[in-house]
Amino acid sequence: MSSSYVHGYGASEVNRLQDQATTLVDLLHTDTVYPDGARVLEAGCGVGAQTITLASRNPQAHFTSIDVSADSLSRARHSAAAASLTNVIFQQADIFDLPFARHSFDHVFVCFVLEHLPRPQEALTALGGLLRPGGTITAIEGDHGSTYFHPDSAAAHDAIRCQVELQRRAGGDAEIGRRVYPLMVEAGVTGVRVSPRMVYVDASRPELVDGFTHRTFTAMIEGVREDALQAGLIAPERFDEGIAALSATEVFCYAFFKGVGRA
Amino acid sequence: MSSSYVHGYGASEVNRLQDQATTLVDLLHTDTVYPDGARVLEAGCGVGAQTITLASRNPQAHFTSIDVSADSLSRARHSAAAASLTNVIFQQADIFDLPFARHSFDHVFVCFVLEHLPRPQEALTALGGLLRPGGTITAIEGDHGSTYFHPDSAAAHDAIRCQVELQRRAGGDAEIGRRVYPLMVEAGVTGVRVSPRMVYVDASRPELVDGFTHRTFTAMIEGVREDALQAGLIAPERFDEGIAALSATEVFCYAFFKGVGRA
Repeated sequence: MSSSYVHGYGASEVNRLQDQATTLVDLLHTDTVYPDGARVLEAGCGVGAQTITLASRNPQAHFTSIDVSADSLSRARHSAAAASLTNVIFQQADIFDLPFARHSFDHVFVCFVLEHLPRPQEALTALGGLLRPGGTITAIEGDHGSTYFHPDSAAAHDAIRCQVELQRRAGGDAEIGRRVYPLMVEAGVTGVRVSPRMVYVDASRPELVDGFTHRTFTAMIEGVREDALQAGLIAPERFDEGIAALSATEVFCYAFFKGVGRA
Repeated sequence: MSSSYVHGYGASEVNRLQDQATTLVDLLHTDTVYPDGARVLEAGCGVGAQTITLASRNPQAHFTSIDVSADSLSRARHSAAAASLTNVIFQQADIFDLPFARHSFDHVFVCFVLEHLPRPQEALTALGGLLRPGGTITAIEGDHGSTYFHPDSAAAHDAIRCQVELQRRAGGDAEIGRRVYPLMVEAGVTGVRVSPRMVYVDASRPELVDGFTHRTFTAMIEGVREDALQAGLIAPERFDEGIAALSATEVFCYAFFKGVGRA
């Protein structure tokens, strides 16, 4: 699993994930509220970018945050300690081989994880099996096909397509956001309600120009440069032209999809 | 102007515009509120789809709704009479040759019009010139580049591209939504704030499957079939395959952009 994680595990990637979460916290997580005492499983916590937000905002809920990567978990533990969080237990585990009994959790939360899995529906089914009857499952994913901008740039689309293709070759789907609804329904989740969370950036929102267009999206695409060149997906000049065009966009649009349903 | 209006003026197009407005009313117009006694210019009212909503929801405001097409105005008058509206005056006029004095209006409203104009920024500048100091201008546009869906279909994208290309050849821009912000700013409008209005459709929202995916978007694309074939843009089988794929989408996404600023 870890070797196929398209974004890699470098330090700049860790910063990107933190920047992303800081910028998107309100958009994505404001309505994720867990009752006092709730047992919440966060599946695929990575470096803890979402963990810190969730556990801070729901201080009386008990989080179990798992990830397949020991290195990511170590970073996540460090972040949680720095934030003085005491309501999170980190545990190394594989979503496809979960070390928990049925009905172990009241809620499951999975964010930016399904996009990297070869069998996302199977993962949702396995996670749903850990919920007590009536417990909820929340899934959040982006969709690179939701990206458009002004001025438009064919080179920028070519650069984005490199990431989509690399992720596909690694068994994932960078355009999975639009599939959150059918995946949850087919996994047996009931009462599924998906809400889109569109990020819209223009010059009147300078914090998003910097925090989202530059430091989240463009940085993410830029992060696959070497892999894309090695795979022969694009010429270096074309890739760099695309990155420059993305950085220079006056208007930038992207959408995330948040699905919630019941076991 | 009228001969280059890409959607045409047929009866089915009139129904489509009505369906569209009925389905999108809350999404687009809930926050368009004008004070009692306000003088509002609606520029490019067409068959009155938006006029009925605006004038009904703001019964104490006075609307002047203009369009370049006498036939559209006649249908708009009929709709307004059927809705017992008494606060709208319809008038035939060209946005590029406006028969009003400076400072004639407190507010200007322009919806699904700029996309058809060869010089949209010039239109906004002319319309802004009719406002009293501090009056507001509201512009709403869609963006066909915001369209994505599941299952994905290359044929569906080809069919959509026909409409984009025909509209481009007619001097318009079917992807103008993302340009609402820069157009308003460059037209001298101040304090511009653009908010995206994303339409998200899945099986849990059957009213939108019917009202938006089928009767608004797919019907609109289907409406350019003959023109697209005549222009040699696509083979008939490919176009029909695209329409069938659009109709069958399980998840459908589209975005409108609403900009508001001051003269």
